[in-house]
Amino acid sequence: MADHSLIFPGSEFEGRVSRLQAQMAKDGIATLLLTLPADIFYVTGFLTRFWESPARPWFVVVPTDRDPIAVIPSIGAELMGRTWITDIRTWDAPNPNDDGISLLVDTIQEVTPDHASLGTPLGLETHIRMPGADFASLQDAVLLRKIIDATASVQRVREIKSEPEIECIRATCAIADRAFERVPEFAEMGRPLDEVFRAFQIACLEEGADWVSYVAGAADQGGYGDVISPAGPEPLAQGDILMLDTGAVRDGYFCDFDRNFAIGTPSDAAARTHAALWRATEKVLQTLRPGHTASDVHRMLCRALDAEGATPGGGRLGHGLGVTLTEWPSFTPRDHTPLRAGMVLTLEPSALVTPGRMIVQEENIVLRDDGAELLSTRAPENLPVIPV
Amino acid sequence: MADHSLIFPGSEFEGRVSRLQAQMAKDGIATLLLTLPADIFYVTGFLTRFWESPARPWFVVVPTDRDPIAVIPSIGAELMGRTWITDIRTWDAPNPNDDGISLLVDTIQEVTPDHASLGTPLGLETHIRMPGADFASLQDAVLLRKIIDATASVQRVREIKSEPEIECIRATCAIADRAFERVPEFAEMGRPLDEVFRAFQIACLEEGADWVSYVAGAADQGGYGDVISPAGPEPLAQGDILMLDTGAVRDGYFCDFDRNFAIGTPSDAAARTHAALWRATEKVLQTLRPGHTASDVHRMLCRALDAEGATPGGGRLGHGLGVTLTEWPSFTPRDHTPLRAGMVLTLEPSALVTPGRMIVQEENIVLRDDGAELLSTRAPENLPVIPV
Repeated sequence: MADHSLIFPGSEFEGRVSRLQAQMAKDGIATLLLTLPADIFYVTGFLTRFWESPARPWFVVVPTDRDPIAVIPSIGAELMGRTWITDIRTWDAPNPNDDGISLLVDTIQEVTPDHASLGTPLGLETHIRMPGADFASLQDAVLLRKIIDATASVQRVREIKSEPEIECIRATCAIADRAFERVPEFAEMGRPLDEVFRAFQIACLEEGADWVSYVAGAADQGGYGDVISPAGPEPLAQGDILMLDTGAVRDGYFCDFDRNFAIGTPSDAAARTHAALWRATEKVLQTLRPGHTASDVHRMLCRALDAEGATPGGGRLGHGLGVTLTEWPSFTPRDHTPLRAGMVLTLEPSALVTPGRMIVQEENIVLRDDGAELLSTRAPENLPVIPV
Repeated sequence: MADHSLIFPGSEFEGRVSRLQAQMAKDGIATLLLTLPADIFYVTGFLTRFWESPARPWFVVVPTDRDPIAVIPSIGAELMGRTWITDIRTWDAPNPNDDGISLLVDTIQEVTPDHASLGTPLGLETHIRMPGADFASLQDAVLLRKIIDATASVQRVREIKSEPEIECIRATCAIADRAFERVPEFAEMGRPLDEVFRAFQIACLEEGADWVSYVAGAADQGGYGDVISPAGPEPLAQGDILMLDTGAVRDGYFCDFDRNFAIGTPSDAAARTHAALWRATEKVLQTLRPGHTASDVHRMLCRALDAEGATPGGGRLGHGLGVTLTEWPSFTPRDHTPLRAGMVLTLEPSALVTPGRMIVQEENIVLRDDGAELLSTRAPENLPVIPV
């Protein structure tokens, strides 16, 4: 992967931070504290797989009126020093006596006026990536500075992708497209599902993924019961519907879509369900516009499936996408987030083939002023068959 | 990957939970709330890559006197239903109005006596994986039940691995061993480092990894400046020391070790540093015993490096290992955790070749009553050379 200072024009990160600061000012947040990998990557360009280690907290402090400050374990100083961030403060972590908290408190106090608010994301789809006891002492230490929820401030900015971000996601989608094209090479009848998963991850890497953060899937007779399981050793059998779903990563940006394959001629019900999902997605691709809400998309997909005689599955039917596998909003009846041009989204309708057996189809799009633009190559209308 | 009910004897999870419950009773914790993937996997066997999506919180509630209860998004019900957990309570997540909190509060109230303590990990190397605002309302709702830090309760149990767990880690180490053996096949001079990283991940998958959660590394003249960076497009050059570090995963268990390779004949300083690291590790492998503390290991490694005329690097020089890439304790001067038989640990000394250039060597071991047993195949004493 290339350095983000090479991928993105120099103005990219300054633009992100000034939009964030404008939103903070509007929301009454003087200083923003970020602890999650995705938020820190978004603001700084700091990209590492080291987040896999839960040993250390990492902090980025965004004041309203100056550039962000990284308050991080010293092991990250060199890599952070290669980003656009110049104010980098480090401690020798992990330190059981003071794991960066006094340094963080000092930094917050330095940049935050008395009685002003400290914001940090506290809402849906977020958590605070630091020890709970340390967050409690932070709350005590900054008592004169009220801590308020900054979820919306971060989301309203991050959810509108810049053109360079959209190009990154498009490139990752293209990698997965090429890997999905190769599935018939290795998903033959009799091949254990865990070997298919390995071969698919290898294909993603060969096609240019930096790493493969997510693969799930399933294979079962005429449809599958769940979509988040790792693979077992069961061999692919005639009549199985194989689904592979991937979140591959290139330059820190995810794709998230799946493809289905019939092992031998599929049942009529499976073939019909796949076609119904395709047509329901097509309907939304044609009609989706900025101004619709997340719940509108849920309703549009359900109605289109109903019209096709298919039974919509439960759960959300799509979501945001970008620097994590899934981002807000969620296409559910309860999420009324307005959709805006520049959002990258997944359409992920599911439908029941028979009770307890479903098929899920997913596409990745960017919403433009005049409607949806596909980032994934459209799934075929007819369920592809891997001959047995 | 096989189902954990197949890998582990039926008694494995019951044993873990009864040890946890005994520790909870000792620590005055009536009910334990777990929110982190590793803790939930440890208690239930629930293994999925779906944690990659930050959209939903997941909860496991462990009472002192009955089996654990899963309070989870309905999308996970089928997979959780295949574990040994029978009490599974679900909600339709994500729900912006109530994302499982009322269900969680009800469950905690049902199983926790009035005035008894609710424990959840709040300490070093932990965080609370749920929205901060929801944790605050949980605290309000369970006010009569004090919330206390359960970090030590969980760590004292999880840190002693069962023999089936040790066999899982050994199997993952063997996969990485085989992948490291193949590095000379694809790490030739002129090959861009990002291509080497991809080829190495492919080798891990081909050798049996279910997935590759972590690869970091570096290649630079006579040593490298940092060990957490992703790869750039720079080609391997004569005189580079290439380091690859992996956390591959099989059946949910990690390895975590690295290997170094010289691209062409290494500098004397690099060769001497590599040998000094090997001998310092050898010294500790021979002398480490239960009863030593984490800080003892740090001192033993530093002294052994000093005796070899090498300059120890900063940061921690090893750590625990298991269901995450890194676990406590940390081999630093400040961590006085006693080491006990059954702990799986990494020895990870680093030494400076020249200012700003280091070499890091890592091995994975299990501590036995009579000393260290290697889980990784020992690195060669002499820095291996990839001919140019």
